[in-house]
Amino acid sequence: MEILSPPLIDTLRLVLEFIATAAFALSGVIMAARKRLDVVGVCVVGFLAAFGGGTLRDVLLDQRPFFWVRHVEFVWGILALSLAAMVFMRQHHIQPTERAMQWPDTIGLGLFAAVGTDLASALGMPALVAVMMGVTTGVFGGVLRDVVCNEIPQAFRDHRPYALCAFAGGWVDLALRQVAAPEWLPVLACVAVTAGLRALAVWRNWELPAWRI
Amino acid sequence: MEILSPPLIDTLRLVLEFIATAAFALSGVIMAARKRLDVVGVCVVGFLAAFGGGTLRDVLLDQRPFFWVRHVEFVWGILALSLAAMVFMRQHHIQPTERAMQWPDTIGLGLFAAVGTDLASALGMPALVAVMMGVTTGVFGGVLRDVVCNEIPQAFRDHRPYALCAFAGGWVDLALRQVAAPEWLPVLACVAVTAGLRALAVWRNWELPAWRI
Amino acid sequence: MEILSPPLIDTLRLVLEFIATAAFALSGVIMAARKRLDVVGVCVVGFLAAFGGGTLRDVLLDQRPFFWVRHVEFVWGILALSLAAMVFMRQHHIQPTERAMQWPDTIGLGLFAAVGTDLASALGMPALVAVMMGVTTGVFGGVLRDVVCNEIPQAFRDHRPYALCAFAGGWVDLALRQVAAPEWLPVLACVAVTAGLRALAVWRNWELPAWRI
Repeated sequence: MEILSPPLIDTLRLVLEFIATAAFALSGVIMAARKRLDVVGVCVVGFLAAFGGGTLRDVLLDQRPFFWVRHVEFVWGILALSLAAMVFMRQHHIQPTERAMQWPDTIGLGLFAAVGTDLASALGMPALVAVMMGVTTGVFGGVLRDVVCNEIPQAFRDHRPYALCAFAGGWVDLALRQVAAPEWLPVLACVAVTAGLRALAVWRNWELPAWRI
Repeated sequence: MEILSPPLIDTLRLVLEFIATAAFALSGVIMAARKRLDVVGVCVVGFLAAFGGGTLRDVLLDQRPFFWVRHVEFVWGILALSLAAMVFMRQHHIQPTERAMQWPDTIGLGLFAAVGTDLASALGMPALVAVMMGVTTGVFGGVLRDVVCNEIPQAFRDHRPYALCAFAGGWVDLALRQVAAPEWLPVLACVAVTAGLRALAVWRNWELPAWRI
Repeated sequence: MEILSPPLIDTLRLVLEFIATAAFALSGVIMAARKRLDVVGVCVVGFLAAFGGGTLRDVLLDQRPFFWVRHVEFVWGILALSLAAMVFMRQHHIQPTERAMQWPDTIGLGLFAAVGTDLASALGMPALVAVMMGVTTGVFGGVLRDVVCNEIPQAFRDHRPYALCAFAGGWVDLALRQVAAPEWLPVLACVAVTAGLRALAVWRNWELPAWRI
């Protein structure tokens, strides 16, 4: 990865970010379709799932402008995607399977966790808060999506590690920062650990301890 | 309208704003009554419906003080209105009909959309974001009201254009700003287009395309 | 109380604050257990119940850093408490009774109301807004807990005075400030009035007027 020139890395990162944002938005559109929302609801829930986590993080950290104000083309993209997905799902009576969403969602969780942890850490937040901000960025888009759709957030009742993967990834990010690694290493490690753990959790069917009835 | 002196316009606007705020608050009180909330719930939900949209917009745009901090007499008014409406509804076993609410709600949507779009536009937000802030101002009071009352927001599942009217009005506002119209024209046009489209949608029973079962 | 030296008062206040925060967190853990959330859900809902009210107040008043950023040891404490409570409840099939929670919750409401009213008042907020910020601090942790767990907030439908006690306490706080009482008196009075009214409401089984069916 070191041999990639910086602009190429930047482009790669923006492409990955768009894929991740799109995956999160799609999860919102699917939820909105299940709840038979109208076209406004589909777009709002898609937007919330895509940008809600980062926006909540920026409100808590008092950062402006938001990502979607700086990159308004992402909002157009998410609106177009939401509408296209809605039309497609209406015409074909099919929904993107959960499995098809798994990969972009996993990468998205890793990217968002790394971005959030890094930003909070750069602002001098205590370690635990920085990690929490990474988790918030990755997870709270889905939480807002579920709350607006009148469901208990999946991230809180799924019993399959999701937020916990971002939590672990965040600590790896901060730990590598301590040992003066090259600048890009902690970010990359956070993405890899978060996404890797999540992929493992899905693949090996890991389950968090449940309540006995 | 040009012949009205500025103070008269200001007074007119404040009166309209109070009517609109009151209409939104009443929608909250009615929802709270349906859910059998207590007096605290009635006042909070009335407050959320009335001021929630503008407050969320100001948090996102990082604007302080809020409208209800600058005009604390509006809060007293909304509290008194919520209590009076609650007492009235308990004694007479009647609720304001949805039809009676239609007009103030329609004007409120127009006014709030214009105020939100204008503020965001004056702060240099990109066009799409400014329009979204107008929609947020007009619509998210009702969204918060519904979320707190454990309902999927009506604005997202009603299939009757509501947020879309504010969306259209916002674009008209921004377009007129480009052609150097007199200062008051874009605002007035936004109110007229938003409220007009909404009135048409209700009168002609327009419906957004629904999901097939 | 005047004879206590300032550091002792500070320590006492921090101890009381931790007890109150812990009581609020426990109410979140219990709710999460009822809803069969996983370990992530338990910790997040515990955190929301404990810090949600103060955080919302600080977002509205544009104050940073948050209490839990300044006192990150409180977050560790709440995380540990949530996990311990979860393990304990799983092993013993018992839940802290509502009665056992009553006292710390009552003291917490008083403390949080006083802290919120004081902060808003010191920032020059109008009296009504300052009192509302006190109520928000005391009550909205529980509101967020209930919204995330897909319930209508207990504070809005319980018909037993809770937010109203904090409302009354806030006005007492502000009134005493007018008569140039010693600095600590308004705070103490607010805690005493809020907690006292709440204790009376629970003990005497006070009920707010309900809707007739």
